Amino acid sequence: MAKAMTLLWGAGSPPCWRVMIALEEKNLQGYNQKLLSFDKMEHKSKEVLDINPRGQLPTFKHGNTIVNDSYAVCFYLESQFKSQGNKLIPDSQEEQALMYQRMFEGLTFYDKLNAVIYYDWFVPEGERHESALNRNKEALTTELKLWEGYLQKLGSGSHVAGPSFTLADVVIFPTVAYLFRFGLSAKRYPKLGEYYNLLKDRPSVKASWPPHWLENPEGQDTLKDI
Amino acid sequence: MAKAMTLLWGAGSPPCWRVMIALEEKNLQGYNQKLLSFDKMEHKSKEVLDINPRGQLPTFKHGNTIVNDSYAVCFYLESQFKSQGNKLIPDSQEEQALMYQRMFEGLTFYDKLNAVIYYDWFVPEGERHESALNRNKEALTTELKLWEGYLQKLGSGSHVAGPSFTLADVVIFPTVAYLFRFGLSAKRYPKLGEYYNLLKDRPSVKASWPPHWLENPEGQDTLKDI
Repeated sequence: MAKAMTLLWGAGSPPCWRVMIALEEKNLQGYNQKLLSFDKMEHKSKEVLDINPRGQLPTFKHGNTIVNDSYAVCFYLESQFKSQGNKLIPDSQEEQALMYQRMFEGLTFYDKLNAVIYYDWFVPEGERHESALNRNKEALTTELKLWEGYLQKLGSGSHVAGPSFTLADVVIFPTVAYLFRFGLSAKRYPKLGEYYNLLKDRPSVKASWPPHWLENPEGQDTLKDI
Repeated sequence: MAKAMTLLWGAGSPPCWRVMIALEEKNLQGYNQKLLSFDKMEHKSKEVLDINPRGQLPTFKHGNTIVNDSYAVCFYLESQFKSQGNKLIPDSQEEQALMYQRMFEGLTFYDKLNAVIYYDWFVPEGERHESALNRNKEALTTELKLWEGYLQKLGSGSHVAGPSFTLADVVIFPTVAYLFRFGLSAKRYPKLGEYYNLLKDRPSVKASWPPHWLENPEGQDTLKDI
C-alpha cells in the first residue's frame, strides 16, 4: 500500500515530521518521498502546486487521494489503516477525550513556538517591535508551564495524553524536539525534557529524524533564556 | 446523555457555535448551558478556569470528561455517539480524505478572517501598521478565492467537503456566516453565498444561531470591499 503513496516534504518542518512519524507507526515504510528545499522555494514549484494549491509541505498523495494538512494526513492514515501497525486512537472515552484535547492544544503550542523562533521571518523589518517579541516570549513561557503541568499530572513515563502513544504524540513530539533543538533548558522544563527523552529513540521517531540535525547535531540557543 | 453535559459558551464565538451545531447534529439537545460574557471577562472567571486553564470558551464537560477545544469536542462527540443523530464522518475513503483536509484548512480560513476583522483587537495600538492590515486583507482575499474554487469544483448544492453534511461543515459554516455578517459580498463570492444559503436554515444551525444576531439582524460592513 505504501507504494501507492507519495510524500513531498521539507527538512526543518514539524508538520512534515508528523506525517513521517504517522507513516512509520502505521507500518507504511517504502512510500515514495522527495525532499524539497524551502530555501530554493521548491514548495512553490509546479510539482507541489499541482497537488497543493497552498504551496506548502507536506504534500501527500495516496493513489488519487490528496491530503496535505499534517493533522488531516494523521487522521486519514489512522482511519484507513486502523488495524495496521500501532493503534493511534485509544478506545477508552477518557483517553480519547484527552488525546483530542491535547492534539488541538498542540496547534496553539506550535504557533507560540513559531511566534518566537521565527518572529523575524514572519514579521517584515519595518513592522517589528521589541514589545511584540517580548509578549510572544511571555506567551511561550506560559504555554510551556501549562505543558509541564499536564505532564506532571500524568506522572512519570507517561505519553502526552496518557499511558499510550497516540496521535497526540505524533503531532506534538516534533514541536517538543524543536524546542530543545532551539536551546530550551531541560533543567527549567524537566517534564518536557523527560518526555523528549522518552520518545527520541522510538523507532518511528528515529527513522524520521531530521537529516540536517544528524549532519549537524549542534542546535541554536534562541530559547536558552525562556 | 445530554443531561450529563455542560457547555459554557460566549456569543459571537465561531468555536462555540461549532460545538453547538455538533451537539444538535448528534441529537444531544437538553445539555446544560451557560452563556458567559466576553465583555465582562467571564471567560477568565474561576468557573471557567477550574475546567479550562486557558480561560477560553467553549468549555465543555461530559460527566467527568473535559474537552474544551472546539475541534476536539466535535471529534469526541462523533466518536462517542457514532450511531446517534447524523453521521458526521463519511465512510468512503475519498470523502473522508477531503473532509479531514478541509477541516484543517478551515483553521487557516478562520485565522485569516480574524486577522482582518479583529486586527485592532489582536495588535496593541503602538504596534499597528497599515501595511500589515493590508497584507492580512490580501491573504483573506486569496483564501476566499481558494474556497470559491473548492465549492465551484464540487458543484452546486454541495456541502463543503462533498455531497454530505460532515464535520467539515460543522467547523467551517460558522466562519462563513461570520464573513457575511461582517459584510462580505455574495456577488463577489457567489459560491460562498450559495453555501451560506444552503446551510443557514438547517435545523442544527438555526437552533444555535447567535442570539445577538437575532436581536440585531444588521451586521457590519468591515469586509464589504474584500
